[in-house]
Amino acid sequence: MTVSEYFNQAGAAAREASRVIASAGTERKNQALIEIGRALDTARSDILEANNVDMEAGREKGLDDALLDRLELDHNRISAMIEGLHQIAGLADPIGEITDMNYRPSGIQVGKMRVPLGVIGIIYESRPNVTIDAAALCLKSGNATILRGGSEAINSNTAIAACIKTGLLAAGLPEAVVVVMDTADRGIVDLMITSPDWVDIIVPRGGKGLIERVSSNATVPVIKHLEGICHVYIDSDADKQKAIDVAFNAKCRRYGICGAMETLLVHQSIASDVLPQLEELYAEQSVELRGCEKVQEIIEVNAATEEDWSTEYLAPILSIKVVSSLEDAVAHINNYGSGHTDSIVTESYTKSRDFMRNVDSSSVMVNASTQFADGFEFGLGAEIGISTNKIHVRGPVGLEGLTSQKWIVLGDGHIRP
Amino acid sequence: MTVSEYFNQAGAAAREASRVIASAGTERKNQALIEIGRALDTARSDILEANNVDMEAGREKGLDDALLDRLELDHNRISAMIEGLHQIAGLADPIGEITDMNYRPSGIQVGKMRVPLGVIGIIYESRPNVTIDAAALCLKSGNATILRGGSEAINSNTAIAACIKTGLLAAGLPEAVVVVMDTADRGIVDLMITSPDWVDIIVPRGGKGLIERVSSNATVPVIKHLEGICHVYIDSDADKQKAIDVAFNAKCRRYGICGAMETLLVHQSIASDVLPQLEELYAEQSVELRGCEKVQEIIEVNAATEEDWSTEYLAPILSIKVVSSLEDAVAHINNYGSGHTDSIVTESYTKSRDFMRNVDSSSVMVNASTQFADGFEFGLGAEIGISTNKIHVRGPVGLEGLTSQKWIVLGDGHIRP
Repeated sequence: MTVSEYFNQAGAAAREASRVIASAGTERKNQALIEIGRALDTARSDILEANNVDMEAGREKGLDDALLDRLELDHNRISAMIEGLHQIAGLADPIGEITDMNYRPSGIQVGKMRVPLGVIGIIYESRPNVTIDAAALCLKSGNATILRGGSEAINSNTAIAACIKTGLLAAGLPEAVVVVMDTADRGIVDLMITSPDWVDIIVPRGGKGLIERVSSNATVPVIKHLEGICHVYIDSDADKQKAIDVAFNAKCRRYGICGAMETLLVHQSIASDVLPQLEELYAEQSVELRGCEKVQEIIEVNAATEEDWSTEYLAPILSIKVVSSLEDAVAHINNYGSGHTDSIVTESYTKSRDFMRNVDSSSVMVNASTQFADGFEFGLGAEIGISTNKIHVRGPVGLEGLTSQKWIVLGDGHIRP
Repeated sequence: MTVSEYFNQAGAAAREASRVIASAGTERKNQALIEIGRALDTARSDILEANNVDMEAGREKGLDDALLDRLELDHNRISAMIEGLHQIAGLADPIGEITDMNYRPSGIQVGKMRVPLGVIGIIYESRPNVTIDAAALCLKSGNATILRGGSEAINSNTAIAACIKTGLLAAGLPEAVVVVMDTADRGIVDLMITSPDWVDIIVPRGGKGLIERVSSNATVPVIKHLEGICHVYIDSDADKQKAIDVAFNAKCRRYGICGAMETLLVHQSIASDVLPQLEELYAEQSVELRGCEKVQEIIEVNAATEEDWSTEYLAPILSIKVVSSLEDAVAHINNYGSGHTDSIVTESYTKSRDFMRNVDSSSVMVNASTQFADGFEFGLGAEIGISTNKIHVRGPVGLEGLTSQKWIVLGDGHIRP
């Protein structure tokens, strides 16, 4: 069987199963989640054995420590996967929700019903826990899933796939509700992203390289998360302590997440008040500072280059710029930012409103750290990624981002005049 | 200047103008709409003269009567365009709406703000009134627009574009808020649909050929409206009179619209009750009937072929099939339909719920004619098209379909632990 035949078979099965899971009741979906967890628990030793094969192959292949760490499973990680399944079972079912039912002058009643998207393709790197996480979110939101994990995790994913199958069958659902691509053939990715007959939407989860490769070649819509070049703007009307707290937390809580601040903008009238104190705090954490000329007049920093303003460091490095107005700050953010998360620190009512309205990012904050950009912090209960798309869904994507709405029309034999 | 240079210049201008229109207040946007109407009124003779040039060229080129009719402008059609502008000015402004603001355990308050998409590209056929209609909807929803009409309407569109410019400038808005591509070069379409830097979403308006061409080549997201293969299913528990009313209206009110019924499904237990009477009514309207074998046993009809079940006639032709259960009807619709609009006629509470939940179409109706599938009938106030997409927006698309939502986070110096 060629890779294309293999994929078409899997795609057709997923499409058919998507009809079943779309109309499955909440209890049945929850039961499947719990049963998958039970199967994982039972198969712990099989999974760890399979993971061991992947780990050894990875070490031989010379994968770096970070990749090996993400690939590795242990009892705690399996327990966390099971715990995640229980959490998702506990979330409200978004499917079937009916809203906005209004009577129209013609007498018909019109509203909307929330429905699944159909088949969701997930393309991710060699992190076996994503297999469970993604399958669970798609299942709960009534979608079938085609999962394609990194080839280094193939044995781990195959072992986990067996547990998913066991769980689905135990709940009386077709196994093709979750299809795990258990071939290392890289051609599968190209097929997934160009087969609108079998896949309704693609969610790539991984580094920028993966996401760019997927989205530049996809003919299927992609929920993509490109980089997070996040800003904090300390306004002239900022409370000094709040400004320092937010600017420090936004950079230093964690460096490697997409919601970390990469550029600090400071209004010229407050710069000499806040920058020296921030310099000290950042120095304690060994954060390298790169500033514009005006920043260099106030504190000792390296010179920032034009490139710095559009760089996502994901590291203890921060670029700092002094601006002369709110408008300058907003223009800088809209020009150099990545439309991810940006925050203003101000006590001014009017400037908070201007910033919220005019910054074109998926999350716009006032007096809060950009590190809050997260599905759990926003109350979504779960997160499959953070979208920097403008259409369909922006920012943290939870169950609702994996759904759509159809129109419902109720009449009593109404005909249109 | 090459077509690509021309387009890049226009695209960059539209992108810049999109920032201005995104934050423009409601009053300014309404003022622009009214001023555009005023400019159209003043320029009536110029517009009619330009249209006359297009009409003569169209006749020489041998355009058929339907195309010429859509191309032609007269005083009434200009008045209708002006009236349309006033109607859109009267609609509520969707932009800036804030919803779902909730406090989270961390103390931050999180919600959503409705925002424009950015720059919307509209590709349409030679119907000059669409120029005003599309520009007005995009403007009201805070978006910049790049408009590309059919080349046969180039003179009419250029004259209308001059009025749009006058109106925008009179309201103090940049003229690039609406960019009308006034070149007949067909390369413009390819550039529009493959330039995500300048265009955020494409809305093709026109026949199936145009839409398929656009969506199979676009790398920019497309709100597409493919065909409307709409069904009415007369259930065993249908009220006979309602069934006949709905089935007759769904086919015969207008044949050429996408919400017209193309296939009638009838439960076997009620078929001999309703089909003879429907046969008479359809015969009065000279509707050609094509039926499955069971239908042929009850009334005199031509035989339906497999192809009939997936044909959008847009004509006085109807295919009819007898089914043995609700499940069969739903399976037929999900298999052969186009996910547009489908209706059940039934008095059964349970079956109405099953049908609504399980039919995977953008509009699902109970005891109502499929011809209600329309933005005005649904209360959208305006309609830029009907989407058969699953993501972003399904069914009739009004102002809200041209917007997205960003997250808003309000704190008081909150940092993430």
